[in-house]
Amino acid sequence: MTEVKNKQVILRNYVITIPKDSDLYVTSTTATIKFKLPADTSATSNSKELAVIVKNLYLSCDPYQRLFMEKIPGLSHFKSYTPGSPIFGYGVAKVLDSQHPDFKAGDLVWGTTNWEQFSLITTPKNLIKIELSDTDVPLSYYAGILGITGLTSYVGLYEYCFPKEGERVFISAAAGAVGQLVGQFAKLMGCYVVGSAGTKEKVDLLKNKLGFDEAFNYKEENDLDVALKRYFPEGIDIYFDNVGGKMLDAVLLNMRVHGRIAGCGMISQYNLDQPEGVTNLMHLIYKRVRYHGFTVREYYHLHPKFLDFILPHIRQGKIVYVQDIVEGLESAPAALFGLFKGHNIGKQVVVVDHE
Amino acid sequence: MTEVKNKQVILRNYVITIPKDSDLYVTSTTATIKFKLPADTSATSNSKELAVIVKNLYLSCDPYQRLFMEKIPGLSHFKSYTPGSPIFGYGVAKVLDSQHPDFKAGDLVWGTTNWEQFSLITTPKNLIKIELSDTDVPLSYYAGILGITGLTSYVGLYEYCFPKEGERVFISAAAGAVGQLVGQFAKLMGCYVVGSAGTKEKVDLLKNKLGFDEAFNYKEENDLDVALKRYFPEGIDIYFDNVGGKMLDAVLLNMRVHGRIAGCGMISQYNLDQPEGVTNLMHLIYKRVRYHGFTVREYYHLHPKFLDFILPHIRQGKIVYVQDIVEGLESAPAALFGLFKGHNIGKQVVVVDHE
Repeated sequence: MTEVKNKQVILRNYVITIPKDSDLYVTSTTATIKFKLPADTSATSNSKELAVIVKNLYLSCDPYQRLFMEKIPGLSHFKSYTPGSPIFGYGVAKVLDSQHPDFKAGDLVWGTTNWEQFSLITTPKNLIKIELSDTDVPLSYYAGILGITGLTSYVGLYEYCFPKEGERVFISAAAGAVGQLVGQFAKLMGCYVVGSAGTKEKVDLLKNKLGFDEAFNYKEENDLDVALKRYFPEGIDIYFDNVGGKMLDAVLLNMRVHGRIAGCGMISQYNLDQPEGVTNLMHLIYKRVRYHGFTVREYYHLHPKFLDFILPHIRQGKIVYVQDIVEGLESAPAALFGLFKGHNIGKQVVVVDHE
Repeated sequence: MTEVKNKQVILRNYVITIPKDSDLYVTSTTATIKFKLPADTSATSNSKELAVIVKNLYLSCDPYQRLFMEKIPGLSHFKSYTPGSPIFGYGVAKVLDSQHPDFKAGDLVWGTTNWEQFSLITTPKNLIKIELSDTDVPLSYYAGILGITGLTSYVGLYEYCFPKEGERVFISAAAGAVGQLVGQFAKLMGCYVVGSAGTKEKVDLLKNKLGFDEAFNYKEENDLDVALKRYFPEGIDIYFDNVGGKMLDAVLLNMRVHGRIAGCGMISQYNLDQPEGVTNLMHLIYKRVRYHGFTVREYYHLHPKFLDFILPHIRQGKIVYVQDIVEGLESAPAALFGLFKGHNIGKQVVVVDHE
């Protein structure tokens, strides 16, 4: 039994429209934490119910977390955050103790954890052990390109968009965590790839570092339809939708026959009291286009295959991965909500502790 | 060479918003028509370029025809109607003469023809010969259930929605040409089927004649979301979208995880200057739903298979088919535009001539 301060990031109350940093607060109370779990002595216990204690190292900041800060009507399958409790998300952690046979003290893992220093994980099925042979890359990568962010990009592009060489691909929020990877994966396939972003710095990054064919700052465009026609005079085969709203409406006007849209997120809409209306849906029929929403949560089984694909590319320097890292749980609320202000360039990660 | 009056339905001018009957006019001028084609003597001629002369019998009235009455920006692949010329569509006709080896005088055909008494068809690849063995059913059926209308229903349900026994299916404009068939096909699969329509008479038809489990009059509902929750307390697996707009927006709130939406048409939007905004698209991602627009034009190759499926059902009385038939080309403009006022019950057909 050890007494430590377990710093936590707590949701104050459900958020209605635009989140403020103060909607989350960081506690630093002294809590009693058992770093040692009792041995599992029950002959009938299910290994799925066994607990693991971890020290959190890196936390992934993701736009979808905003959705868990409110109760969305009709979505009973959504597990919202609980006001007064720490929020959760994806992260990288080190095992301190485990009742579960798959984990032992000292193991490095990634998966679902809480935004705090130390976590008692009672659903270790959501943890994946990081193989020692795969720790030659920075450990924070498992809070991004080697974890959910990378798998999301991979699944969204390959399982939902079926890219073929020479096809025309557009990605919104392209300098974000997922967008930067989707663009590079599409380039590996021999596609023509254009991304939109919200600052000149991000546009330069896309064109000069990430290998996009073209990129533009959507905030400088009076008419998104005109902007898209400039880069896609023959239309768009694949749209990777990270933003929804007005950009989606303009994209619909520019889709090609049999185009595919992967619905990954609609970050432009999360903080609105009433979402924007999308008016050009008839183009889904005119051009026989499909819009398919997806979640990476249904594709964890593809993670080993994804690692086999991505690790060689990283080791050979064929994929550029941009992280935006802040230090300390105190910085976490501003880092998370900065996603909605476009503050991050690349994958936003919070360092809780260095290994 | 024979001189006859060839009555024609002509588009006066491109239509901007709500079409008026006077946007079409019926001519009855004396025109010279060669009922006999010159024999094809060119050794190099392609049989695809050979002409067929037909006497039109039945014309199909379809909502998509409204879209051909304007120039839609960015849709260069759409063949709009030409002001001053007869409009075209699907219909049933009798061959009077043919240069094409697949057709001979006396054959009955269905396919693309003009809205007039006699047509010179220069693209006979769009005509399909009706087998004599399949003329025991009313010939007008080939302007509907045995033609494009039936194939649309079949393709939309089976190729885009993948219905399984026990799944929950919702169909808008359910008493229309396509809706009535989709509902019955889904019942054959053992689905729970609910339709919406715009009059009490149509709702009664759906429930009492067509075998729908439930039906409701959308015009009597203050809140479509509430109405859908009444009939789908556990949500909708499959939505067959014939109307778009507000109904689609309410359906999105009620889709189940992995739901499928076939985008067949959006009749509620065709006459609007600016389409209504759809605000609930985020539910496509929340519930991993796909919306897939389609056109039957890409599925003509399935027509023989479709006939093998549908003809036995019709002969055994297992499918009810409701037609709304008017006589004479003079009645055609009002019949076509009546689709947008909900005047038709079932498939709207114009009789040009009885065989």
